[in-house]
Amino acid sequence: MNKPHKQQQETGRQSPIKRATSYDVAELAGVSQSAVSRVFQDGASASKDMRDRVLSAANKLGYRPNAIARGLITQRSNMVAVIITRQTNLYYPEVLVQLTQRFSEHGVRVLLFTLEHERDTDSVLDQLLQYQVDGVVTAATLSAEQMGTIENAGIPVIFYNRTLPERLVNSVRCDQEEGERWLVSELANSGHKRFAIVSGPADSSVSMERTRGALQKLKELNIDDVMIVSGDYSYASGRAAFAEIVDRMEGLPDAVVVANDVMAIGCVDEARETNNLRVPEDISIVGFDGVGPARYAAYDLTTVRQPVGRMSEAAVSMLIERIENPGLSPEKRVFSGDRIRGGSARLVDDEA
Amino acid sequence: MNKPHKQQQETGRQSPIKRATSYDVAELAGVSQSAVSRVFQDGASASKDMRDRVLSAANKLGYRPNAIARGLITQRSNMVAVIITRQTNLYYPEVLVQLTQRFSEHGVRVLLFTLEHERDTDSVLDQLLQYQVDGVVTAATLSAEQMGTIENAGIPVIFYNRTLPERLVNSVRCDQEEGERWLVSELANSGHKRFAIVSGPADSSVSMERTRGALQKLKELNIDDVMIVSGDYSYASGRAAFAEIVDRMEGLPDAVVVANDVMAIGCVDEARETNNLRVPEDISIVGFDGVGPARYAAYDLTTVRQPVGRMSEAAVSMLIERIENPGLSPEKRVFSGDRIRGGSARLVDDEA
Repeated sequence: MNKPHKQQQETGRQSPIKRATSYDVAELAGVSQSAVSRVFQDGASASKDMRDRVLSAANKLGYRPNAIARGLITQRSNMVAVIITRQTNLYYPEVLVQLTQRFSEHGVRVLLFTLEHERDTDSVLDQLLQYQVDGVVTAATLSAEQMGTIENAGIPVIFYNRTLPERLVNSVRCDQEEGERWLVSELANSGHKRFAIVSGPADSSVSMERTRGALQKLKELNIDDVMIVSGDYSYASGRAAFAEIVDRMEGLPDAVVVANDVMAIGCVDEARETNNLRVPEDISIVGFDGVGPARYAAYDLTTVRQPVGRMSEAAVSMLIERIENPGLSPEKRVFSGDRIRGGSARLVDDEA
Repeated sequence: MNKPHKQQQETGRQSPIKRATSYDVAELAGVSQSAVSRVFQDGASASKDMRDRVLSAANKLGYRPNAIARGLITQRSNMVAVIITRQTNLYYPEVLVQLTQRFSEHGVRVLLFTLEHERDTDSVLDQLLQYQVDGVVTAATLSAEQMGTIENAGIPVIFYNRTLPERLVNSVRCDQEEGERWLVSELANSGHKRFAIVSGPADSSVSMERTRGALQKLKELNIDDVMIVSGDYSYASGRAAFAEIVDRMEGLPDAVVVANDVMAIGCVDEARETNNLRVPEDISIVGFDGVGPARYAAYDLTTVRQPVGRMSEAAVSMLIERIENPGLSPEKRVFSGDRIRGGSARLVDDEA
């Protein structure tokens, strides 16, 4: 199905060093093949002498037991697919590190798929089925049809910060709406009346949830002086979004509610540099995510931090459970974000 | 060898949905098994009608050709291992995205290994051999012994920003020393006489190369008023390093040469916030890497940007070449960094 493969079929394998088998090791060590198997089988009995002879022979020949061949027999590949988008990794590289390290504690390896955009999931679907992964964690949206194909193959899936409406799916996510509602109510409680919202890219479900949360809370508070502009999550698009707000809105907003921290930082810089505004004295700017730069002294954002460590741990343990017990019913775990009152917003004291 | 495996052997597989074979598809579609193979073989001839019947049956059964089984026959797993450290991913998440996307253009998947520290490579070595990867890209240092084990198994390795002294290895790297030498000479040419250096963690070979480059250039310029402190690449450690410099040095340095951008940002904030210094009027601070936050208006670092896109492309093409032709002799590709004259250093014009 993929190119290198086709090439092989046409030209033949260039025959590199042939991989040693357990029989080769047995011959060199002067033991039986089953003795070699025993040595490489965790916890199986083998004398120290036997062990030493086999390991020494194996090392000389570059032999290692073949996890893949074993996977064919046990019907477990001990691999899971992790699907992330370029955005996810740029702004939360921690997610991938956490997932990979935690899976590895279970002896499970991560086969990585990175998408340029959320909508590119079609291209990976075939691949992850072909590699017979035991499970999937996806931080990109799947369609109901794609989900059906994976379910059909008996592969459990955990949605990370995503979900699939009207379907029973497993998901781990941060409560984006709750976080935004908190940010908006803090700002409103502190006297902010005119709002601008900077949303994220159109194909980001996370951005949609955040914008919806902010708008709903504003509506409940009867605040209708709201302008919405959008960016692509990048710093440059945050600066451009702030410029657009200044350009289009009559007078400045009291507060700008931004769909992620990186764009919020762009807004702060554009406010200060181009418009000579003081943050937060002249304008409050809040973000979402709790990324590292949000804590740099020049920005000190009021924001909501996603509990990435606990979310990753939940995703891994839910998937491992479902690989071992495919009959488990679906589960949704929703984590509240950590609320951070930074210096980028004019907030009254929290003592109420 | 790994835990889930052992568990299986003890408890038996919980028997989920059995995976469909090409024979099951053939039966449902009412065609021969070889017709199914043809349809799934890229570019092989099959009529549209045949194709439709087979794909429809395959979809109903959740069948996909088994890339892993095929790999056993062709002795190609079409997987490569990418070994990165937590640091690599936090500060250059782009590297992993680039590598993964470029490998995928070759039909090759990335099996990911993330290490907490550079020195943790032992734990992954066995695993990557067991999974029979076709090749390895490592952004963590391997010992000569580890390298020997991998070579013994006939698996080509590309070192990313690393090398192995006195051994023939393939490597792709940014010229750290050259970059630091440029930074130091720019500062010296602009009248800076007293220097402090903030180096990175002790187990980072990249940091060692950068610090060595800076020190050599300073020595050549007969500048010996130099203090060295160190951090762990994090923002907080950059702030702490600057505080240590202020604390230990008699009078301020003219310039601080920092091993990465994130620590340089920490130094800028500590200089401004705690010490009321203006950057660059009172002190120049330079970094290395060219990460996103280095371009935030509040910092605007003078730095050297690693050409991550070209380096990743080089690593992927070198590895694919060596998988297809194991006899190729080793190659080293060294990329000069892009020189960025930002507002964080007092530099004379470049017109000389």
